[in-house]
Amino acid sequence: MTSRDYYADSYAHFGIHEEMLKDTVRTGAYRNAILNNPNLFKGKTVLDVGCGTGILSMFAAKAGAKHVVGIDMSNIIDQAQKIIKANGFADVITLVKGKLEEVELPIKEFDIIVSEWMGYFLLYESMLDTVLVARDKYLKPGGLLFPDEATLYLAAIEDMEYKEEKINFWDNVYGFDYSCIKDLALREPLVDTVELKAVVTDPCLIKHVNINTVKKEDLTFIAPFTLKATRDDYVHAFLAWFDISFNGCRVPVRFSTGPHAKYTHWKQTVFYTPDTLAVASSDEVSGELSCAPNARNPRDLDITISYKGPTDVQPMTVQYKMS
Amino acid sequence: MTSRDYYADSYAHFGIHEEMLKDTVRTGAYRNAILNNPNLFKGKTVLDVGCGTGILSMFAAKAGAKHVVGIDMSNIIDQAQKIIKANGFADVITLVKGKLEEVELPIKEFDIIVSEWMGYFLLYESMLDTVLVARDKYLKPGGLLFPDEATLYLAAIEDMEYKEEKINFWDNVYGFDYSCIKDLALREPLVDTVELKAVVTDPCLIKHVNINTVKKEDLTFIAPFTLKATRDDYVHAFLAWFDISFNGCRVPVRFSTGPHAKYTHWKQTVFYTPDTLAVASSDEVSGELSCAPNARNPRDLDITISYKGPTDVQPMTVQYKMS
Repeated sequence: MTSRDYYADSYAHFGIHEEMLKDTVRTGAYRNAILNNPNLFKGKTVLDVGCGTGILSMFAAKAGAKHVVGIDMSNIIDQAQKIIKANGFADVITLVKGKLEEVELPIKEFDIIVSEWMGYFLLYESMLDTVLVARDKYLKPGGLLFPDEATLYLAAIEDMEYKEEKINFWDNVYGFDYSCIKDLALREPLVDTVELKAVVTDPCLIKHVNINTVKKEDLTFIAPFTLKATRDDYVHAFLAWFDISFNGCRVPVRFSTGPHAKYTHWKQTVFYTPDTLAVASSDEVSGELSCAPNARNPRDLDITISYKGPTDVQPMTVQYKMS
Repeated sequence: MTSRDYYADSYAHFGIHEEMLKDTVRTGAYRNAILNNPNLFKGKTVLDVGCGTGILSMFAAKAGAKHVVGIDMSNIIDQAQKIIKANGFADVITLVKGKLEEVELPIKEFDIIVSEWMGYFLLYESMLDTVLVARDKYLKPGGLLFPDEATLYLAAIEDMEYKEEKINFWDNVYGFDYSCIKDLALREPLVDTVELKAVVTDPCLIKHVNINTVKKEDLTFIAPFTLKATRDDYVHAFLAWFDISFNGCRVPVRFSTGPHAKYTHWKQTVFYTPDTLAVASSDEVSGELSCAPNARNPRDLDITISYKGPTDVQPMTVQYKMS
């Protein structure tokens, strides 16, 4: 068996940027937020944190920004430099290759910071930490953040069929017992699209992030939740997603990565439970979700969900890890 | 923008093994070749090169092998050890973690070598080099290789729609010119499934590999090809795939990864051409394909295709790179 990490390498080149650019919900939201608000951008200085191929920098330049600085530590910025030039923005956009925490920027104060920093489950491998450093170091008092608000939600889903395929598959692999891998599979949240009809409870807000004021330590949190069943059904997993808002716009721009909304490349995040809960309509599944960077590798995310079904006396606790 | 290499990391854990195990063409072929030939395996010593989760080792043990040694350098072998034990094979199967070229194996001569070493385009990130080292160092004279034959094929396809989406997309990204990325995209072969009806020429064998006798240097090669059009159509890309045979079996087991065969996780490999060729039925597209490990990084594969359509005077040459 070979490593077959072809796509990983491939996406380091340009494929991952193709996926993000073709995510029209994502890129379209930034375009609307920036291009429909030239009054906010005209004559202003803009910092694009994690600029990638430079698309947000070019939106800002097109909206009338006086000077845009895009920064990225990935080699993709070499392509961005060619793209900026090909599109006639070389005078307005300055690209900087490196880590924002380490480099010297050509401008010391910005009117606006734009950044597409969101990861799976909002926070997995996200660049929010870097955006907060940029905010505290470079944003003028009263300056704007695009976006400025993120909200994380949780619900419970019926998902027997896919749980069979992804988790219980390991019970019997060509007649062999692979249950040690089943344990690993259960503890690894699955990034995938879920149909709205699979959702069996109301959603519950578990984390609200105001990018204007949030501190790094706020991203380690414990959130209680209560999920009210909307019908009689079985629960096989919890489901998380996030919404994003650009409230700095005259008419706020918003998008959701939830199961009720149009596909995005973030999809949703599924946390399978070891057992299956039976819920009647209006029953409540309650518990708490904790989220913290892994102590050994801060790029990994430790997520623990404790939950109690309507008939449970003791809560069940499952430790997940995104890595 | 975040790196979003979640799946790459995830597959380092177990996801890539899930994909390979669920590829029933692949795993089923090995199962049939091994389990249906207990006469070949009974009482024999078997070496499993790149054993992964240990599935081929367990097939060999189940087929009656006296002793199986599985070797893998990936951490997945820690799971394989648990799986071997859970399935009662701990006495028959010995697992070794490390590089075959460097470690000491508990047995010095084997009757049979089994290995699933094939990569995309057969040779990209393949483990064939290691299998050849194992063959020359550990296989008894007259010993068997499972599989023992691989064949690479080329054809030409009509693929306007997808070429628009994957290549020409970069001409206009939200109104911006991204053509520098278009050049990169064109030179990177695309691993994807292609429908049989897209194939507009007969296939041409470009490389036959007899694993019993092939040498490492044979894997750097130049192959001429002539592709005869089976209908009037346009050619947007070349398409490559491979077939695998287990001729050591009493009834040979074979599978194909071509567009005419059942889906495998290897899919096919698409090489888009810069121009579009018009071909009439019976016209020939001729040229040569060269393949070599990249000089700087031998894990990368340099593939050059020179070709001439029916009306071309000069051949067109395109250098591709799988990396």
